[in-house]
Amino acid sequence: MKAFLECVPCVLNQVVEVIQRQALSLDRKESILKSVMAELQKQPISKLSPPELTQQAHKILHKFIAKEDFYKEIKEQTNREALELFPRLEKIVKNAKDPLLTSMKLAIAGNVIDYGPAHRMDVMQTIDRVLKAELKSDHYKKFIKSLRNAKKVLYVADNAGEIVFDKLLIQQLLDRGIAVVVAVKSKPILNDVTMPDAKAAGLDQMGVNIIKSGSETAGTMFEDTASEFKKIFNEADLVIAKGQGNFETLKRDPGVFFLLMVKCPHLALASGLKAGDMVLWNKAAK
Amino acid sequence: MKAFLECVPCVLNQVVEVIQRQALSLDRKESILKSVMAELQKQPISKLSPPELTQQAHKILHKFIAKEDFYKEIKEQTNREALELFPRLEKIVKNAKDPLLTSMKLAIAGNVIDYGPAHRMDVMQTIDRVLKAELKSDHYKKFIKSLRNAKKVLYVADNAGEIVFDKLLIQQLLDRGIAVVVAVKSKPILNDVTMPDAKAAGLDQMGVNIIKSGSETAGTMFEDTASEFKKIFNEADLVIAKGQGNFETLKRDPGVFFLLMVKCPHLALASGLKAGDMVLWNKAAK
Repeated sequence: MKAFLECVPCVLNQVVEVIQRQALSLDRKESILKSVMAELQKQPISKLSPPELTQQAHKILHKFIAKEDFYKEIKEQTNREALELFPRLEKIVKNAKDPLLTSMKLAIAGNVIDYGPAHRMDVMQTIDRVLKAELKSDHYKKFIKSLRNAKKVLYVADNAGEIVFDKLLIQQLLDRGIAVVVAVKSKPILNDVTMPDAKAAGLDQMGVNIIKSGSETAGTMFEDTASEFKKIFNEADLVIAKGQGNFETLKRDPGVFFLLMVKCPHLALASGLKAGDMVLWNKAAK
Repeated sequence: MKAFLECVPCVLNQVVEVIQRQALSLDRKESILKSVMAELQKQPISKLSPPELTQQAHKILHKFIAKEDFYKEIKEQTNREALELFPRLEKIVKNAKDPLLTSMKLAIAGNVIDYGPAHRMDVMQTIDRVLKAELKSDHYKKFIKSLRNAKKVLYVADNAGEIVFDKLLIQQLLDRGIAVVVAVKSKPILNDVTMPDAKAAGLDQMGVNIIKSGSETAGTMFEDTASEFKKIFNEADLVIAKGQGNFETLKRDPGVFFLLMVKCPHLALASGLKAGDMVLWNKAAK
């Protein structure tokens, strides 16, 4: 999917948010923002995917701000908070009529996790909303059918915090004797989950194989991925891809199931979805 | 008040919104957006007021888009819709215990009017909310006291649509035998009210004097205003200034009463207000 012009102010919003968290003078901050704008002017905006646009902006931030991971503390915090919530989430799945469906809904709810003072309430409200919501039945039927004889699933993760919610769905897969490979980002980008974040979430204690996708964008551009990722992507019986960034970038093969909260009204409009929708989406489903 | 770095993506959002409404190719649109970004890079962002930043961006838009008023149809529509609502608003004021206070609250509610499919509901919800809300009593007391012996009021208007709501408060002033001068923008900028918009709202049939402020920004930079505006500003017993743009730019003299809906979280933070607050604000009040 290609970036909308509306992605430019959105990316700059994220850029300003990162800049404002740095201990720099206002002049310095303004100058960094201007350097990012200068870079975006050079980019073929409408020919890039939204995560590539973000990546170009962040490359400039990294030139001026000597931090490898702008979201380290935020990711640690959201992981911690999600882990605190985890026993309650496990109970919800355990007591559910359809634990697989419920764990999937909660994995989508996790996609709404964002940092900031308002997020605690949002998470609980979102959990409540997603449990009451219906996923499109044909997409879920396709998922169940694909899962029936599956031996290997590739799970393409999205954000820190969210990854704790993902454990519920991953556990459901493992309980069915399915081998799960979880792909995380190779380098920090936004609040996307990297190897240390996945470990902090306890993913390494679940008996899954965690790999780096090779992607350094807040999505997964297939051509940029590591050969190991490509191999597993092609071998896997099905792929679960989390979040909007992956929906915007990853190949929409019939074996790929996207799980996301639609956060952007422009993406929504272009995809026939609604902003705020919690979606299980598969190309082959109606 | 000086612009925040956060104003940059916000201004670019407005710019993209204008660009997208034009019948131009995607390439052309992208190129115009990039020209605006190039211009903003040249500006001393943190030394300008937010309306000045918008003005600089719009100057570039006008270079590439041959329209004098980017919001003409939108302003006509919001004026029409507010006029449809007007008899109901008049009835609310007529039946109110304190018609002056109620008309003031409705003038603030009008400040939330924005175009877009969701706005109808917003307006009715906002009216309901503002009527139930309390204005800070000390500011209202100061207003009443200033009004007591006032013979001449300068009313600095904000948006089209909103101007219809303003008529309620203006009528309250006229009913008290006060002469009212309404200042509108000299040139189209965003959806701010200009002379034709004021006339379309029926302001010219109220027995008020309508003047052009001289300001070409979405606020009122005193130094840029017409000499007639300056004279009336200094002569008037009190000044009522509507909306966030005026709050960001106009002199905060003790005789100036700002009426606004706080729309920006950064402005809110800097002013000790809350985003969403409906405010009557005066420098001399507690």
